Amino acid sequence: MSFEVFVLGTSGMMPIPGRFLTSAMLRRNGELFLFDCGEGTQVSLKMLNLHWKKISRIFITHMHADHVTGLPGLLMLSAQVDRDEPLYIYGPPRLQEYIEENRRILDMYINYPIIIKTISSGVFLETEDYTVEALPLLHTKPCFGFVFKEKDRKGEFFPDKAKSLGVPMGKLWGQLQNGNSVTLEDGTVVVPSQVMGNPRQGRKFSYITDTMYLDYISESVQNSDLLLCEGMFANDLLMDAREKKHMLSSQAAMIGLKGNVEKLGLIHYSPRYSDRELKILKEEACEIFPRTILCKDRMSFDIPLKD
Amino acid sequence: MSFEVFVLGTSGMMPIPGRFLTSAMLRRNGELFLFDCGEGTQVSLKMLNLHWKKISRIFITHMHADHVTGLPGLLMLSAQVDRDEPLYIYGPPRLQEYIEENRRILDMYINYPIIIKTISSGVFLETEDYTVEALPLLHTKPCFGFVFKEKDRKGEFFPDKAKSLGVPMGKLWGQLQNGNSVTLEDGTVVVPSQVMGNPRQGRKFSYITDTMYLDYISESVQNSDLLLCEGMFANDLLMDAREKKHMLSSQAAMIGLKGNVEKLGLIHYSPRYSDRELKILKEEACEIFPRTILCKDRMSFDIPLKD
Repeated sequence: MSFEVFVLGTSGMMPIPGRFLTSAMLRRNGELFLFDCGEGTQVSLKMLNLHWKKISRIFITHMHADHVTGLPGLLMLSAQVDRDEPLYIYGPPRLQEYIEENRRILDMYINYPIIIKTISSGVFLETEDYTVEALPLLHTKPCFGFVFKEKDRKGEFFPDKAKSLGVPMGKLWGQLQNGNSVTLEDGTVVVPSQVMGNPRQGRKFSYITDTMYLDYISESVQNSDLLLCEGMFANDLLMDAREKKHMLSSQAAMIGLKGNVEKLGLIHYSPRYSDRELKILKEEACEIFPRTILCKDRMSFDIPLKD
Repeated sequence: MSFEVFVLGTSGMMPIPGRFLTSAMLRRNGELFLFDCGEGTQVSLKMLNLHWKKISRIFITHMHADHVTGLPGLLMLSAQVDRDEPLYIYGPPRLQEYIEENRRILDMYINYPIIIKTISSGVFLETEDYTVEALPLLHTKPCFGFVFKEKDRKGEFFPDKAKSLGVPMGKLWGQLQNGNSVTLEDGTVVVPSQVMGNPRQGRKFSYITDTMYLDYISESVQNSDLLLCEGMFANDLLMDAREKKHMLSSQAAMIGLKGNVEKLGLIHYSPRYSDRELKILKEEACEIFPRTILCKDRMSFDIPLKD
């Protein structure tokens, strides 16, 4: 079952040539989850040949123009394709008003249901397979980070072990796979752990932007397979970062380190840095956390199932 | 005095890789005039190194998302630079509400005055140097084309002719240049046409999108130095064009021909055409009006002063 993350844009504040606004897409088992939607996001989607029609849920961190102004254009794509499935959009207060007012004023024709959910701290979405948690951040506006976590899968079932313990193939195997003990004809009790491996960890993706550094972020993103985290400035701009409530790339690295994440991808770069100058952001982050990647637009991460 | 037109985007309905949404910029004597502002317009501006701060007036054809959703991001750029001069934005009803609601909901900090003018048919802007006229079009929403016309300049003054007629250099020359007759000491009357050439024609730029074909467009754009005109579809899609109230490229060419324009630049292409397939739009237009150019994003036109 696929679990891929596509970086749709890496720019903070404004789109610039070669860098669309910060946004990411998770593709899991054919379903698309979009994180933020600034101006140009739909172009990046098309470059990656990701079909917006498959987007079932959109998560918006906060109501700054650079994270939402791509929404009306994305919703307008509906006029181009058939779609019946509802689209869920989750975000902070005012998201609903933003979408509804733009729909009304621009008189947008949308041929499928849009369901807008105002979120607060904590798990706001849970299915059989995964949870999505909103993590309150500290920015100049109410803002949330997102943690997408698959539920653990059952451990592997070993038919040979079951056979050697005398459990006949059939109904009893199913009971063991579902976590129940079984009693054989001779009265022997076989428990699941005798025939199954340990539960297999679900995959975890965290998306953190825009915020000042907060110690508790590393707890929420603990053991993420991938953390995309804003690393807007280099160390010499600590004061600017504090004032604007943004982070240094080295602070993102500190979160990566304390959170013991598998990979840290930097995003949301200040437009003050040219493509060449971005390497300072990476260098300063790598001093703290070497598994740091300088994300570029349309970079992707393929996170395999865990054994 | 410069008069340059930059094509910021050529796509209709949605931005696609390599084609931002239809928009154009006129740069005249250092002042910038923007026509439409869809998603991505600000990126194209940056690619051309055009400074948004110099934009004094924005003209919006109509309130469809693909022509306005770049406005909030453009206005937000204000946070990045100092600007005192007001920004005038002209367009159809609902433009004011669109901008005000987006400013309010996104809580945008804008450090200069924005003055929004709702326009109707006719000349809505006149300065010493130029006029801008709104031309009502026929689309699925109220829509205007724009005709930017410099006023004619006075004819050239010929000092030698003045001298030979005995007009002494000084105050009398100024009176002649201002169009007044003068009387010499010996009673001779000299009229301006004796010492000046014919008035020199101002330059004219017309921007026409989105509309079905209307006969009177060619009258309004008559003798334009440059007409940018939507040529959305090839001839085989006449029915689609009619239904969606758009134009074929051959209809744009008919306007160019009847309007006797110097150059016709096609814009607002349907995203159904790949870059390679666009040539059919040009071919069908050139059969009618050979001075047709297939505009590409960031193409520019330099229109010299007329003698």
